[in-house]
Formats: sequence, C-alpha cells, structure tokens
Amino acid sequence: MLSKNQQKHIRQLSKKKYRQETGLFVAEGEKTVFDLLDAGWKTDKIYATKCFKNIPYTKVDVVEMGKITHLSTPSPLLAVFHIPKYTSDLWTRGGFSLALDGVSDPGNLGTIIRLCDWFGVKNIFCSPNTVDCYNPKVIQSTMGSIARVTCQYTDLHQLVEHFGGEIFAATLDGISHYGQSFPTNGLLIMGSESHGIDGDLLKKIKNHLTIEGHFNGLKAESLNVGTATAILLSEIFRPV
Amino acid sequence: MLSKNQQKHIRQLSKKKYRQETGLFVAEGEKTVFDLLDAGWKTDKIYATKCFKNIPYTKVDVVEMGKITHLSTPSPLLAVFHIPKYTSDLWTRGGFSLALDGVSDPGNLGTIIRLCDWFGVKNIFCSPNTVDCYNPKVIQSTMGSIARVTCQYTDLHQLVEHFGGEIFAATLDGISHYGQSFPTNGLLIMGSESHGIDGDLLKKIKNHLTIEGHFNGLKAESLNVGTATAILLSEIFRPV
Repeated sequence: MLSKNQQKHIRQLSKKKYRQETGLFVAEGEKTVFDLLDAGWKTDKIYATKCFKNIPYTKVDVVEMGKITHLSTPSPLLAVFHIPKYTSDLWTRGGFSLALDGVSDPGNLGTIIRLCDWFGVKNIFCSPNTVDCYNPKVIQSTMGSIARVTCQYTDLHQLVEHFGGEIFAATLDGISHYGQSFPTNGLLIMGSESHGIDGDLLKKIKNHLTIEGHFNGLKAESLNVGTATAILLSEIFRPV
Repeated sequence: MLSKNQQKHIRQLSKKKYRQETGLFVAEGEKTVFDLLDAGWKTDKIYATKCFKNIPYTKVDVVEMGKITHLSTPSPLLAVFHIPKYTSDLWTRGGFSLALDGVSDPGNLGTIIRLCDWFGVKNIFCSPNTVDCYNPKVIQSTMGSIARVTCQYTDLHQLVEHFGGEIFAATLDGISHYGQSFPTNGLLIMGSESHGIDGDLLKKIKNHLTIEGHFNGLKAESLNVGTATAILLSEIFRPV
C-alpha cells in the first residue's frame, strides 16, 4: 500500500525542477527498466503489478499503479532511478559525439537517443535549453536506449571551443552530406526544430553540412531534426 | 457567423469515416494551406481570422475559429479541401516510390511524407491499415509536404505483384543498406512500428535491406520507422 506522500513524490518526478531537487527520475515498461538495470543504473525503488524474478520490488495493485504512472496506459513495471552524475571528462572521450542546440520536443530527443544507440554514439551534449532527457516522454520514446547513451547538459560554446576533434554543423546552406569523409573522433551539432543552430555558435564552426534533396521548383522547407540526424549519422558511420 | 451545423461539419472532419463520406479534409496553418493552394488542390471553404490577399475566404472571429479548429493552438487560417481521387495509373508512374505496411502513428506518416517531399518521391502506397493521410495530425506534421506527395491506399500484395520495377523491403535481417545500388524506378516497403512488414507480403520480395548499426553487445532493438525511412531514402538517392 502506497502512502499519499509516496504517490505524490513519484507523480512529481514528471516535473524537471523536482527531478533536479531529488536527483531521481521515473522509467516505465519492462524493456526500458530492464535495459537500465542491465546497464547498471542505480534504482531508488521499483514498483510492479505482477511478479518479476531477480529484482527487488514493491508489489502494487493496478489502481495504485494508475496513481503513480506517467503514461496514459500504465505498464506493469515502474522504477525510480538515480540520475547519473557526469564529469566534464566526457568531453575528451573518444568516438563521434552529437550536440543538440535547443531541441525542444521530447519525442525528437527520444528518437535521437535511440539513433545514437543504433550507431554506437556514446555521448550527447545538450544545450541547457534542450528538453530534459529524464522527462518521462523522452525516456519512453528512447525505447530503452537511454540506458546506453549519456546526455550531458552543458554550454555548447565552451564545448566547441575546447573540443579536440573536427566539428560539423547541420544547416540549410552548407555543402552536400554526400561524399564527405568523417573522422573517427568528431562532433555533429544539430539545431532546434524551429530556429536551427544559434548564430553565434554557428560562426565558430567551419564545416556546414546540408542534406541534399531533389527539388523541382516547390520544395520542403526543412526536415524533422530526428530524420535529419538519422541521415547524417548513417553518413558519418558509413564504412570506408 | 458560422451556424452550429457548419461548426459540427468541420469538427466532424477529424473522423476518417466522415472524411470518406464527404470527400473532404481540413488543413490548417498558413504554410500548409498555401502549399496546397499553390499545388492546385481544390478547396471547399476557407476560414480566416485575419486578412489574406488573393484568396476567397469567410471571415470568422477567434472564438469561432476555436470551435472549428482541430489544433490545440488554432492558426488564423483553416481550409476545407476536397480529397483528390487517384487512379491506379500511379502504379506505373516512373521514379522511386515508397510503400507503407500498417504504419499507424500519424506523426510517423507525416514525417515520412515530409521526407518524400525532400527527396522527390512523388508516390506513397499505403496498406489499408496504415493511418489515414488526411487525419489532421498527419496533415499538420507534413508541414505542407502533403501538397506535393500523393498517398494512395491500396492492396500492397497486388502492388508488389504488378509493380514494374525492383522492390526493396526494410527488415532487421537483410543485407547492409550501405554500398547497394538502386534503380531509378523502384519501390521501398517499410513495415509497421511494432510488427514490421506482413510475413506473406515479405515472402514476395527478394531484396531485404537492414540499416547497419554499430553494436557492442547490448543494442537498440529497432529504429523508429520515420528515421529508418530517412536513412534508406538518403541511400537510395545517393548520386552515383
């Protein structure tokens, strides 16, 4: 039996401010929770409406789960996890990384995290005005990939100035994304859905990439940031 | 002043059955409405809360617009358009086409229509259980691209049997999407978010493509159908 205070505590984790105060977030659904557990993320509490082997959980009934879930259709498993703390060491980790400047839609961020997991991108650097990756809608749309990709919120100007590899920016007036060669250690910056990459930030980046389309007069004005990231990552990880 | 019957008529166009009975659909927002008008789509009625030059419209106030809009935040422009009628001639049109088997999320279909517009794909063939492209959420997420891409609902088994070009299916166990050569006239089939392509349909297709990822032990299980389509279209339209 969950007390009203416990219920309120879990529901309040839908709010960014409360997540920051407590250092906790909620993950739901068997795939996502087990992916996080398998990757060694630390739990605070786990709640389940059915039996699960090998994990410590508090049994709740469907009505109680309905009171604590952040989903419109509750799953049998809800876990409260600790938000991991990253150091600026991540900046110097090898491999190709991604930076997001002002991506505001939770579904887009979730899709991008899932893409990074697919292509083996370990680090995403997010501007402070990018949607919080521990937002329940983001967690849900990563389909478990949040367990294997780190999202760090940081000043992208500083990142760009100190990053030790080649940097690429996705814009609407750069060179074609086809036929480029990409380094093993590099950084791709994607801008917000409506405003693109901040102008001052963009000035610091030499390589501007544009996804080449096939236009006949009338044309699409832009691509969704998730699909644009997909196309560029596929190109960056093209085997040589 | 809009009568209650007129208001009800427009609101009911959010329902597929009513759209099919009337042959009408609603588009909202200046970009989408003007893209459709520019592409020659036939309007039934246009409603606007502010002045627009060169189009015939009925002036409504913000309260009335609030009663007929299908959006959570109404735009100043709402138009009722006639659903175009396509013939099976589309099957034999040249160029690379896309087929969708059971894609159910309106946002995913909208994203895919936008991608097709970007890459110059003129025709999308949808299985009858794919979400209706005149659903207001689809129209909104195409960002005007619906004006330049035709969506035809048809039996994909028949399409595959009669299609006069090479056919490719996106699966999780095919050959790598990198390094393939694609014909000018061809068809790419994408499956539903949860079930992939129907098994009987898949048996009829020789070329199975998989988006090559970089996995280290744990891996993402699949990609969102929008991002997977993005990656494959970028590859199909790679300049030789």
